[in-house]
Amino acid sequence: MKRLSTAEPGFEAAFAALLEEARETTARVDAAVAAIIAEVRARGDAALLDLTARFDRWAPADVAALRVTEAEIEAADAAIAPGLRAALNLAAGRIEAFHRAQLPRDLELRDEAGLTLGMRWGALDAVGLYVPGGKAAYPSSVLMNAIPARAAGVPRIAMCVPAPEGALDPLVLAAAKRAGVTEIFRIGGAQAIAALAWGTAAIAPVDRIVGPGNAYVAEAKRQVFGRVGIDSIAGPSEVVVIADAANDPRHVAVDLLAQAEHDESAQSILITPDAALADAVARAVEAELRSLPRAAIAGESWRRHGAVILVRDLAEAAALTNRLAPEHLQLMVEEPRGLLARIRHAGAAFLGRFCPEAVGDYVAGPNHVLPTGRTARFASGLSVFDFLKRTTWVEADAAALAAIGPAAVALGEAEGLTAHARSVALRLGG
Amino acid sequence: MKRLSTAEPGFEAAFAALLEEARETTARVDAAVAAIIAEVRARGDAALLDLTARFDRWAPADVAALRVTEAEIEAADAAIAPGLRAALNLAAGRIEAFHRAQLPRDLELRDEAGLTLGMRWGALDAVGLYVPGGKAAYPSSVLMNAIPARAAGVPRIAMCVPAPEGALDPLVLAAAKRAGVTEIFRIGGAQAIAALAWGTAAIAPVDRIVGPGNAYVAEAKRQVFGRVGIDSIAGPSEVVVIADAANDPRHVAVDLLAQAEHDESAQSILITPDAALADAVARAVEAELRSLPRAAIAGESWRRHGAVILVRDLAEAAALTNRLAPEHLQLMVEEPRGLLARIRHAGAAFLGRFCPEAVGDYVAGPNHVLPTGRTARFASGLSVFDFLKRTTWVEADAAALAAIGPAAVALGEAEGLTAHARSVALRLGG
Repeated sequence: MKRLSTAEPGFEAAFAALLEEARETTARVDAAVAAIIAEVRARGDAALLDLTARFDRWAPADVAALRVTEAEIEAADAAIAPGLRAALNLAAGRIEAFHRAQLPRDLELRDEAGLTLGMRWGALDAVGLYVPGGKAAYPSSVLMNAIPARAAGVPRIAMCVPAPEGALDPLVLAAAKRAGVTEIFRIGGAQAIAALAWGTAAIAPVDRIVGPGNAYVAEAKRQVFGRVGIDSIAGPSEVVVIADAANDPRHVAVDLLAQAEHDESAQSILITPDAALADAVARAVEAELRSLPRAAIAGESWRRHGAVILVRDLAEAAALTNRLAPEHLQLMVEEPRGLLARIRHAGAAFLGRFCPEAVGDYVAGPNHVLPTGRTARFASGLSVFDFLKRTTWVEADAAALAAIGPAAVALGEAEGLTAHARSVALRLGG
Repeated sequence: MKRLSTAEPGFEAAFAALLEEARETTARVDAAVAAIIAEVRARGDAALLDLTARFDRWAPADVAALRVTEAEIEAADAAIAPGLRAALNLAAGRIEAFHRAQLPRDLELRDEAGLTLGMRWGALDAVGLYVPGGKAAYPSSVLMNAIPARAAGVPRIAMCVPAPEGALDPLVLAAAKRAGVTEIFRIGGAQAIAALAWGTAAIAPVDRIVGPGNAYVAEAKRQVFGRVGIDSIAGPSEVVVIADAANDPRHVAVDLLAQAEHDESAQSILITPDAALADAVARAVEAELRSLPRAAIAGESWRRHGAVILVRDLAEAAALTNRLAPEHLQLMVEEPRGLLARIRHAGAAFLGRFCPEAVGDYVAGPNHVLPTGRTARFASGLSVFDFLKRTTWVEADAAALAAIGPAAVALGEAEGLTAHARSVALRLGG
């Protein structure tokens, strides 16, 4: 963990180093992924069967075995504990309500020249959702990726999830059921991405693929981009907590560790004007680590990437936060809304002393798929906008064309595009 | 030009081939571009001077010479013909008005659990605009790329444009002035993209880069993606014209050629239920080509990629159009709004017999930067949304956390993320 103070000489260099710190190195798997995609394109479902046997340590009897049946989904759902089922229902309902509220309205304008201009939103026809298997098979991630697509009106949501040794997490299936997933396939890795992008006999192609994955999945998404849309490739998670003196240091410490426990590359940063709180939080982190099941991961993240930054005041905290453009931001201060108004760049903000980021991971309603690694400067969290596209339209009659057409002719001729100019001039009687 | 008819056997195979037709091959320039980016990162402005001398055939005296001065912009503006100045003003005003109308509203919801949820839109801090030099230096493209950024509220818009032999197109400078560009640099190619993404002493880095360019520029954008946002890489342009019997064949022919004259890879497709119109348009295309300055390009595009598709009715025309998902779509029919309602996938639509696509290229108001190559299935034209990002936020007090916190604890524990669960449980007094 680094300790910085804006009052000390050398702060600017140390902070700049923190900003540029690379927390992740990605393996080069381009060639391996290209080969897998080529194999799926060439051999379709037969390739999926072979690749699943090779990578997921189970041999599907036939193509039909790749598809999870309705009965399997119902059985998985019936098996989960009532408390968890209630939690999933609460989460799904709240996520759906917030994403429905995001739905934009169409535009239609008639102007003084007599043209009508419009912009129409429409849902994608089909979306693919990748869900990692193994340790990162999170039901919350299924809800967060699929529900915005359903809220946007996407009629077909196909999910691929690897089933190591053939097994699937019942909670993941139960989440998929609640999120409106329409098809589930036991397929993982680059082969799943290839199948979703190009289609096989068993899996119809989709228009966009979302969801997290390992280096092979990320590279496969890069390679199919253009054929289909993809979401952004997420980097390791991060949180900035801005906290004043009035906080319980243990609360702040656990919030920092909740981010750190994701993986060793995660980053947790406390920014505070109170030196005593900074010290108390640092001690509380060490104390909490003693009883945390994922202490090895969280401790490594905290030691390698954690930081405590002492500032003169909250204005300085806001300025540093804007340079960090964090994925998650907790504002544990007296007037969190006033502080939020000074923040230009953050993926998601959590206001108040009773609003830990974990409520946003699960049940608050806004999405937990958020821009990482300072990309909140220009990128946004997942939303219904990821599953909608726009068509603009223009309607003109002869009078409207007479009003604005001559300008189009002049510009077309200036750009040397004679047919452009002529297409307008002809209709003006020229 | 291909002639297809839905009534003929073999149509499905021929149409499928049309859908999969690759109209462009891109040169592999990865290594050359990576070297240029590395040079700009290592040597900054000195690299920009060297690379400009090497690629643009002029030697800037010093770094200051790379920046276009206010006086140069004013001189360029003063030199353009009054008719063109009026056309630029009309275009800029209409584009600005349409893009301002797109601006979305923030969201704030209080729910029955006592939480307040919000989504706030904010403009990017700085945007880079690449403008190609030479034959494709289009003032309309400057307006279309920069005005949405200004309408979104972006305070800094830095433009890079190569100046072969040191010269710039006055119309491009005049367009930049009207579009709210705040800085103009005489720098082209991958070196311009590198400078915008990483910054040099003379050019501050931006957060997103937009604008068309050659293969080097496109590859440079790919390589800096992640560091900054980029727009999508545009492919060759295309139009689908749906026209009924009541049209003047010459109008339709010129509209098809207006697309074809862009470049040899462009694609123009007529879909009509009227065989006589199909024949007449095909003849009119040949006639128009005889007097078109860019006949060599337009003719090559028409022969290689053009198509006339005869359909039984407009319902069939809509269904084929949805599979083509064209960049531009003209609806030259009696009831264009009714037909538009059946179109799910198109970048921009032009309704009526007096609405050639060229009005949209220049003056109508909606953007002419649009998704190509069937990507309108999932992608949209440039808009204010490209220059905005969202921050979601959640506000909770103790009572609100008590209402939804237990579900977050249950899900955190189910996912094995103990610190997540603990961060909520602690505040519930657990």
